Amino acid sequence: MLINKVDHIGIAVHSIEDALTFYKDVLQLQLLGVEEVSTQQVKVAFLKAGETKIELLEPMSDESAISKFLSKKGEGIHHVALGVDDISARLKELKEKGIPLIDENVRSGAANSNIAFIHPSAGNRVLVELCEKKRGESNES
Amino acid sequence: MLINKVDHIGIAVHSIEDALTFYKDVLQLQLLGVEEVSTQQVKVAFLKAGETKIELLEPMSDESAISKFLSKKGEGIHHVALGVDDISARLKELKEKGIPLIDENVRSGAANSNIAFIHPSAGNRVLVELCEKKRGESNES
Repeated sequence: MLINKVDHIGIAVHSIEDALTFYKDVLQLQLLGVEEVSTQQVKVAFLKAGETKIELLEPMSDESAISKFLSKKGEGIHHVALGVDDISARLKELKEKGIPLIDENVRSGAANSNIAFIHPSAGNRVLVELCEKKRGESNES
Repeated sequence: MLINKVDHIGIAVHSIEDALTFYKDVLQLQLLGVEEVSTQQVKVAFLKAGETKIELLEPMSDESAISKFLSKKGEGIHHVALGVDDISARLKELKEKGIPLIDENVRSGAANSNIAFIHPSAGNRVLVELCEKKRGESNES
């Protein structure tokens, strides 16, 4: 279970455009890109903070998990993603240790990555994502 | 306002010892050290995740801000600390831009650092700390 880095910190926001006023204009973090993940009904913006990205998450519809998070808790940090190699092997290790998982299987995430979420009950109510860059493709889109 | 990196992610926990079961034993993050910050009535443990540290925060008394956070919100992410150079200049910039601050002046934090908190109303309810390593001293204690 080698964690390479904190890949990104996901922040749920009502509006990426509004949030960029602070994260891009005030903090002057470099905006790496914006993309829509239609399967999750979420629009995401990535900003660079060293080797870590700040990921702003805006719901595209009421069906989005981010929409439900915003309704229940309001804006704020949604998850922390830790960068790993060989995410399938890491997920298998967690299963063998009996760690509660949200994703029993690896799935595709934003920014060309494979991801899996660990249940927040494992990590003191922090929603931890494991995140692996897909091979042979750029992560910075 | 050059942000070097995400210096650390602060997580409020009832017990560092219990939290290390997941963060140290399961995720196998390297434990860098544990220290008590008596002025804040908080015990902190730092674990290494690439250039970022996971900071576990356990209250030492009911007077601690972390104790109040735990009573109100329960365990979870408390703040995100962004690494900067010349924190006094950065704080002056934020003041001039009218950004709401918790700390109008720089103060000493854990792990040999100078810190200042921005008010969460500035950053979509994320409590952002600016953090500068004190010069001429090691950060990894």
